[in-house]
Amino acid sequence: MLDLADVYAARERVAETARHTPLEYSHTFSRMTNADVHLKLENFQRTGSFKVRGATNRIMTLSEEEKAAGVVTASAGNHAQGVALAATRVGVDATIVMPEHAPISKLKATQEYGAEVILHGADYDAAAERAHEIEREEGRIYVHAFDDPMVMAGQGTIGLEILEDCPDVDTVIVPIGGGGLVSGIATAIKEQHPDVRVIGVQAEGAASAADSLRKGSIQEWEHVDTIADGIAVGRIGDLTFEVIRERVDDVVAVSDSEIAIALTALLERSKTLVEGAGAVPLAALLSDAFEYEEDETIVPALCGGNIDLNTLTTVIMRGLVETGRYLKIRTVLKDRPGALRQLIDVIAENRANIYAIQHDRTSRDIAMNAAEVVIDLETRGHDHVEGLVADMRAREYEVEILV
Amino acid sequence: MLDLADVYAARERVAETARHTPLEYSHTFSRMTNADVHLKLENFQRTGSFKVRGATNRIMTLSEEEKAAGVVTASAGNHAQGVALAATRVGVDATIVMPEHAPISKLKATQEYGAEVILHGADYDAAAERAHEIEREEGRIYVHAFDDPMVMAGQGTIGLEILEDCPDVDTVIVPIGGGGLVSGIATAIKEQHPDVRVIGVQAEGAASAADSLRKGSIQEWEHVDTIADGIAVGRIGDLTFEVIRERVDDVVAVSDSEIAIALTALLERSKTLVEGAGAVPLAALLSDAFEYEEDETIVPALCGGNIDLNTLTTVIMRGLVETGRYLKIRTVLKDRPGALRQLIDVIAENRANIYAIQHDRTSRDIAMNAAEVVIDLETRGHDHVEGLVADMRAREYEVEILV
Repeated sequence: MLDLADVYAARERVAETARHTPLEYSHTFSRMTNADVHLKLENFQRTGSFKVRGATNRIMTLSEEEKAAGVVTASAGNHAQGVALAATRVGVDATIVMPEHAPISKLKATQEYGAEVILHGADYDAAAERAHEIEREEGRIYVHAFDDPMVMAGQGTIGLEILEDCPDVDTVIVPIGGGGLVSGIATAIKEQHPDVRVIGVQAEGAASAADSLRKGSIQEWEHVDTIADGIAVGRIGDLTFEVIRERVDDVVAVSDSEIAIALTALLERSKTLVEGAGAVPLAALLSDAFEYEEDETIVPALCGGNIDLNTLTTVIMRGLVETGRYLKIRTVLKDRPGALRQLIDVIAENRANIYAIQHDRTSRDIAMNAAEVVIDLETRGHDHVEGLVADMRAREYEVEILV
Repeated sequence: MLDLADVYAARERVAETARHTPLEYSHTFSRMTNADVHLKLENFQRTGSFKVRGATNRIMTLSEEEKAAGVVTASAGNHAQGVALAATRVGVDATIVMPEHAPISKLKATQEYGAEVILHGADYDAAAERAHEIEREEGRIYVHAFDDPMVMAGQGTIGLEILEDCPDVDTVIVPIGGGGLVSGIATAIKEQHPDVRVIGVQAEGAASAADSLRKGSIQEWEHVDTIADGIAVGRIGDLTFEVIRERVDDVVAVSDSEIAIALTALLERSKTLVEGAGAVPLAALLSDAFEYEEDETIVPALCGGNIDLNTLTTVIMRGLVETGRYLKIRTVLKDRPGALRQLIDVIAENRANIYAIQHDRTSRDIAMNAAEVVIDLETRGHDHVEGLVADMRAREYEVEILV
């Protein structure tokens, strides 16, 4: 099994490629949780995620022959960029197979880091199949995204940094997809400090590792569904499963709503962009998915920041809706002079701000002399929303809440 | 006039309240510009902007009597939060007048930092008038947002940090609204290092300082219009104008499109959120608004990160459109079996990704047997957009570009 010496050895190799991202004390989240929260910001890592650490350690530990043969992998995301940069730095040729509809931004980034990108297949599985063909045809080394001791050891360097930067740490929270990150971090921490808790977090829609631990054997989920695409993995690795079983204290799951709320809070309060998977550890903390003491020192490992900006705008909107800060309602006005103005006054009295208003007299769903109005509002929270809607209804407005 | 000693004195006072945000070397922007770019990330400052520095220095230098009288100011944004936190830290009572429709998030943050907030008036001017009434009625000290030597000196501490963290700096780029930030930074830098350039940047829609410098006297713009609301100021200060004239090398302006592109790039590539005003210095660099040498060491001072998330989604979309990465088109299909599929094939051949598609057979604008389609696409840049549209037209699709 992976051991601590592997992680220390990895650190020397990783030092050239990956950044030591220092822990950032968070006033905001410490106040919100009554804990002492320090963020490990791997979204600021080169390539935008921690994956470059594992890839670097894997590629640097290849034999000279293997290096000369080059590497190949399949990925729709962060692993692609990590392998591309690591290979370029080490001077190894890399081919990455990405699914045909991979986001263009990730495709471009992977090419810019120096890899040859092949677009193949409708999904990750098809791309992986092609990558294994290339492995056989060209004799390249396949770099697995997580189920490889050298990859795990590379990710574990994050654990060493956490211990050094925050010797008082009580609990580290780590996202789990395939399990490489948490295996590395738990290995780095547990042998030296068995009393430091390592808590793994999955998305509820892709919680096969939690399921596997509960049942005592690896469970494969055919269907996974979460906004945290970086951890939308249906099967934990064989090697990572063993490490997790041995060294991770608990594995919990969070919902997409909780992820959206955490991502939005990080952006708005800490001015830092994480992807869905990166928000998962903070989501677990903010939603009390595990227990902790007052003043406990907690480090959520925010693993990456590569989120498609189009997706981001959707997630932000969801985060605002879930916290009662964005409200879209439909109501109907008698179509008479001053009716719209009267409605706007009611909203102003309730101190909500209007973002947008659509006023339509021609909707087919309503009576001839009425007008439908759809309003987008900034609100202060759930209580504010309830008060506003109750007040409108008391004044005999029909109110339909759209989001 | 403000002098260097004021800035050094400010540093001791500010140290307790404001963070020394270290410079962050940017691979991405260094590569894009062939310069050596280090970002000064004041968006990570407590309260989300640099304003807490000036407010702290101002409030700490009040006499004991003045402190006992309390302070008052008007602000719709960052200055409100800066004064609120600074006053609370120093133990001074603060009243902040905000316009009635100030974003709820900023209102709430200002209250949480411990100030009493009064909502008054439709805009900043009305709020400022009320604040001056309170100044007279209650004998409070008015804390001006920029035109005050102690406020400028506090902001100047950023200049000291830049010199210490980056002794090789050649050029510092600073946003200009009222001019407090650039006055402080230029004062901190120029006396010690007259050869270091200080370049001020305004938004084109609020470029009254540049206008004033050109004409040699203060010009007031009645109408200002920019997405960078933090620097949407119509008149430079009397004191700041003198400092800028003396110590700032050049003042340039950037467009809202350039600001949106820079903000989007910072978010996507550096995973850091800035507000419009915070993106302005990088916008000037990326759009070649001033000349610089290869390998020149350049520090854009990203002054703040407080942007309403609803506004953010609009700015991101604009950034993507301006760089040819988001395309919305309308076209018309013969309403026959397979027509939509044929169109989707054309798009796939051109390697654009479909975000959304609306297919409407009932639009009034088109012939009976045709169907209108509106498509949202992810594209790779302007060349890609041109190629796709040309290909579609060559195949006899009408194409209307919507954004």
